[in-house]
Amino acid sequence: MPTTVFLDVNETLLDLSALDPHFTAAFGDAQTRPKWFAELLQLALTHTVTGDYRDFSVLGEAALHALGQKLGQPVPADLPNQVRATMRQLPPHPDTHAALERLRGGGAALYALTNNPLPVVQAQLEHAGLGDLFTGVLSADTVQTLKPGRAAYLHGLQAAGADAADSWLVAAHGWDITGARAAGLRTAFVTRPGQAQNSLAPADVSGPLAEVAGTILAG
Amino acid sequence: MPTTVFLDVNETLLDLSALDPHFTAAFGDAQTRPKWFAELLQLALTHTVTGDYRDFSVLGEAALHALGQKLGQPVPADLPNQVRATMRQLPPHPDTHAALERLRGGGAALYALTNNPLPVVQAQLEHAGLGDLFTGVLSADTVQTLKPGRAAYLHGLQAAGADAADSWLVAAHGWDITGARAAGLRTAFVTRPGQAQNSLAPADVSGPLAEVAGTILAG
Repeated sequence: MPTTVFLDVNETLLDLSALDPHFTAAFGDAQTRPKWFAELLQLALTHTVTGDYRDFSVLGEAALHALGQKLGQPVPADLPNQVRATMRQLPPHPDTHAALERLRGGGAALYALTNNPLPVVQAQLEHAGLGDLFTGVLSADTVQTLKPGRAAYLHGLQAAGADAADSWLVAAHGWDITGARAAGLRTAFVTRPGQAQNSLAPADVSGPLAEVAGTILAG
Repeated sequence: MPTTVFLDVNETLLDLSALDPHFTAAFGDAQTRPKWFAELLQLALTHTVTGDYRDFSVLGEAALHALGQKLGQPVPADLPNQVRATMRQLPPHPDTHAALERLRGGGAALYALTNNPLPVVQAQLEHAGLGDLFTGVLSADTVQTLKPGRAAYLHGLQAAGADAADSWLVAAHGWDITGARAAGLRTAFVTRPGQAQNSLAPADVSGPLAEVAGTILAG
């Protein structure tokens, strides 16, 4: 059976810093963009804990309002639309295309596995010129359970017809690695600036995406 | 039946800014303290989603390592102990004591309900001079499920012998309000600088602690 590789999309493959100008214009500081994404994640995790599912785009807009409240600054009326539009047009990180081609060339079956709704991730991968490299594009939205919830990874395994023990989850987020480990997958943490592993649940391997791709192919 | 009021402790009653000097000494910026607490919360939520329980003090130390990795700065060897010790000696916010006395004087039964392990919260409330105001001190650690997990609130209700519909959860965190709402409690969001509600699950009432106390007593 060929190796199956599930890849997270936001930050792991695509560069969210393309959103920075909107946040700089809105709040006067590009560092509010990673703060927004952290708020988004906090809301996603909270609603996953309570079982009150909301899609990631809805949570993204709620996170803008929480950010504005925490900063004590108004949220410009056009910011939600700007963020939603730019999220579909993020550039890939410079190392993404070559690493995916290497994995695919080495015989791995590649699946995007993301919390973004399907129409968003499909637009993202097409815009980034990555769509043809994937065997399948999957969203946690399909099973109404966001990562790191177990059902999201099981959806990936079922859709790919793969066993957890023969599959990898590749992500630049410690929380995603933690969830994939708990679901029985092998895990690879991609080092990106500003990201961190969970020291209580470290990945099987970690490093730059190119290095991780080589390790996965080496078996 | 008297009104039962469950109160979150960290940030809601006690001022975490007493930790700032340790973070300034370690990372050169006091704003790394709220970043640390956000990391701690992210880890707590992630482990609650995966069902891999860790106590809040263990998660707090892991969050220091994640923060250091995200900042690209080393974590001083003595920082975990400094943070752990100072967490037990936080000052109350200036409005805390009077608001709790008002609630108690109005006939409410007060329970601390926190993610901190029991020995930590007991030390915190004693140091802050608040211990005598509470009918009971409760920790999510007792049921091995952190807030906003449902079991933490149900533990509070059971220990207090209270019905959800006659009980309030008071907190300065949107995620705590979200969890308490999902468990059926009435909810009051305390406005503190740098905190925000979840616009998808707003509290029944919100405002400064003194105002919230008056609203709760008014019924």
